[in-house]
Amino acid sequence: MHSLDETIAALATPPGEGALAIIRISGPRSRESLLSLVVKAPDPLRERYLHRVDLLDEHRRPLDEATALWMPGPGTFTGEDSAELIVHGGPLTVRRILGALFAQGVKQAEPGEFSYRATINGRMDLMQAEAVAELIHSRSEAEQQLALSQLGGSLSRRLSPLRENLIALLRDLEAGLDFSEEDIDFVSRERLDEGVSNLRTAADELLAGAEQGRLIREGLRVVIAGEPNVGKSSLFNALLDEERAIVTASPGTTRDTLRETLNIGGLLFHLHDTAGLREGVEEAERLGVARSESLLDDAQITLWLIDGTGSPTANDQKRLAELNASRAILVFSKCDAPDFTEPTLGTSLSSITLSAKSGEGLQSLRDALFEMATGEQGAEALQVEAALNRRQESRLRALFDILEELDTSTLAKLEADLLASRLRAALSELDELSGDRVGETVLSEIFSNFCVGK
Amino acid sequence: MHSLDETIAALATPPGEGALAIIRISGPRSRESLLSLVVKAPDPLRERYLHRVDLLDEHRRPLDEATALWMPGPGTFTGEDSAELIVHGGPLTVRRILGALFAQGVKQAEPGEFSYRATINGRMDLMQAEAVAELIHSRSEAEQQLALSQLGGSLSRRLSPLRENLIALLRDLEAGLDFSEEDIDFVSRERLDEGVSNLRTAADELLAGAEQGRLIREGLRVVIAGEPNVGKSSLFNALLDEERAIVTASPGTTRDTLRETLNIGGLLFHLHDTAGLREGVEEAERLGVARSESLLDDAQITLWLIDGTGSPTANDQKRLAELNASRAILVFSKCDAPDFTEPTLGTSLSSITLSAKSGEGLQSLRDALFEMATGEQGAEALQVEAALNRRQESRLRALFDILEELDTSTLAKLEADLLASRLRAALSELDELSGDRVGETVLSEIFSNFCVGK
Repeated sequence: MHSLDETIAALATPPGEGALAIIRISGPRSRESLLSLVVKAPDPLRERYLHRVDLLDEHRRPLDEATALWMPGPGTFTGEDSAELIVHGGPLTVRRILGALFAQGVKQAEPGEFSYRATINGRMDLMQAEAVAELIHSRSEAEQQLALSQLGGSLSRRLSPLRENLIALLRDLEAGLDFSEEDIDFVSRERLDEGVSNLRTAADELLAGAEQGRLIREGLRVVIAGEPNVGKSSLFNALLDEERAIVTASPGTTRDTLRETLNIGGLLFHLHDTAGLREGVEEAERLGVARSESLLDDAQITLWLIDGTGSPTANDQKRLAELNASRAILVFSKCDAPDFTEPTLGTSLSSITLSAKSGEGLQSLRDALFEMATGEQGAEALQVEAALNRRQESRLRALFDILEELDTSTLAKLEADLLASRLRAALSELDELSGDRVGETVLSEIFSNFCVGK
Repeated sequence: MHSLDETIAALATPPGEGALAIIRISGPRSRESLLSLVVKAPDPLRERYLHRVDLLDEHRRPLDEATALWMPGPGTFTGEDSAELIVHGGPLTVRRILGALFAQGVKQAEPGEFSYRATINGRMDLMQAEAVAELIHSRSEAEQQLALSQLGGSLSRRLSPLRENLIALLRDLEAGLDFSEEDIDFVSRERLDEGVSNLRTAADELLAGAEQGRLIREGLRVVIAGEPNVGKSSLFNALLDEERAIVTASPGTTRDTLRETLNIGGLLFHLHDTAGLREGVEEAERLGVARSESLLDDAQITLWLIDGTGSPTANDQKRLAELNASRAILVFSKCDAPDFTEPTLGTSLSSITLSAKSGEGLQSLRDALFEMATGEQGAEALQVEAALNRRQESRLRALFDILEELDTSTLAKLEADLLASRLRAALSELDELSGDRVGETVLSEIFSNFCVGK
């Protein structure tokens, strides 16, 4: 990232053609840079007021008729003096205006640099900055609500007792260390044991919450499987047809024609169609089958289809015995056909009878998917106020691992200074999680995964 | 379009993920709609002031932490009460906020509806609204400058003498009609003849300017042609390699691998690579050749390549004789090869010697293309303040055609009331051109080609 002495600018709205675009400027020379582009400076230049301005480039050629907002720090997104230009949304106009800013020494903002500055300047913590990024990329309402709530500081509040208790324990221990020559034990081993155990429990609860967060953020992989010609692709298409509008909102999914995303009740289900799971046959088909098997291994929910107009095969029987009732649903397809009969099978799997053609049973399947994903909690599983993301979770897990090594017997014999160093290591994991007291290098690296203009 | 009594809203920035997005609201209920989404109304709600607001949907669920601008009419883009929400730029956030607005009866703005209202409400004329659209879509600086200048009203100013003279002539003629029973001739045939002739000249000048506008807006089709294996594709790629950044700015060009756009000196050259123009051969190749021939027919500039390490063929000789010196450049390729010799050919075409491999001669070719495109005027051809677009041009041509029928002999014998009706028809073409006094239906139709949010 650039030094905070530099003034940075970037396009803050998505690239492309639109009626309007926003160019964001932040840093000590924001006001000066803004005014240098303006034919006639608004007099007075009012704070946070939408001024109409004519923009000129460094060669005094017209750039745009635009509006400008001047926002002095520290009450801004970055905490710095900032400005926003709301300009006509053409790519060329945006490029020329940014070019005119760069020509005066303003730097192109790096990805995430505005958020980085907001964090460095104490306007939000790292977890809130990550929530902003999540808000932008969220694909379901549950994820968006979680991001909004974390943007409001819910995760920071959830973590603060853990941090306070860890710091208190460390303080007591270190106070003892100072007087160690006099052999005064400021903190008893029992107090230590209890303290560490409480920290472990708190960390464990947060880690459990992370799993729920993953469900909301990432959704579930659902694999449609079964013998060839039982109606897998028809079911895939039938489920998608009614949800097409939501599917298109999910970027990248159309690249792989066999993977599409459904939004059921605010939760994302990534639906995989597979090649029929027949054994033997030709080379090309075997490759498809091998891929299907590997998909099945990774499935969070399996839909095993059996054609209700035929008879279950030996392979069906074998597969059903292998599937886990809490992660699989048996589907009897083609129930619209006159020769349909529901097969009797000795299995504990729950089953749904449906027809991809008539649509009968599709809603029951959707309900069953939602119930299996959310378990006993049902829709409440989506009402999560705070949950660690993968980066945060890996830091907390490192903290948890440190605490777990400190069991009663270890605590009883560990030297006080070694113990203090273990607890300090745990605290530094927590610091990195929340972005407190971590170096600019660590922050830079995290923010470089953000998009430009953010 | 919706009635002006309706309040409309739309995303005004390009769709997709970005740090920020703007939702634009316009119409009588803008203020009320904005406030209904806000947890706590800013007090006071200041005009054109960037307020921080927390947004809630109709079920009181959080929507976003955002900023809001309230702009009472008539000093707004549309001339109506308006508001802008600057929100986090996620597609889902945008969709939910628009959904919350629609839930209270705000209508999704149709394409171009904000500009339509700006025009209906007299905030800009139709030609300025079209300039906004052109500004957004412009792909070269010359086009962007032209659009900006027309946004400033340059085209309206250019047209107004034509309109005033036409109206004056019509007024004189109609004044005569009122008294026709008394047979008073308020306007002499000579005065009419002179007036119509002046109008024709003015219209003709504007039509000539339209051609220059077309060059700036649309660029030129350049076809690279020649016998097989003379280096056409190498030249195509060599010209593009150095301009790749500009090429990507032009949407759609990558779909057709044989067509790419170069920006030379601010002018767009649409470069077409062709199949070699050998005669005879196989069916598939013949089809390619046929397509090349048809491209050549449409070329505004032809680059005819001859391999300088071989000898010109009879076909080369035949083609060179057919090409027009003002629209074709002869290119001797492969000048880096040791056996290169510049062929001597009896042709008036100007020639360039180059090597796609070493890059030698490429800049001369670019200069030659630019010179051929701009003619004697050179770079000044791009300094155009106002030029009709195709829609406007077709209206002015209709006006010109009416005037052209009114030659001296026709004027001498035409009844005064018939003449007045011809001039009124001419005026109505001019009205449609500028959007003055035309019905909302005509305007609706023109604006429906704009993008949503514009």
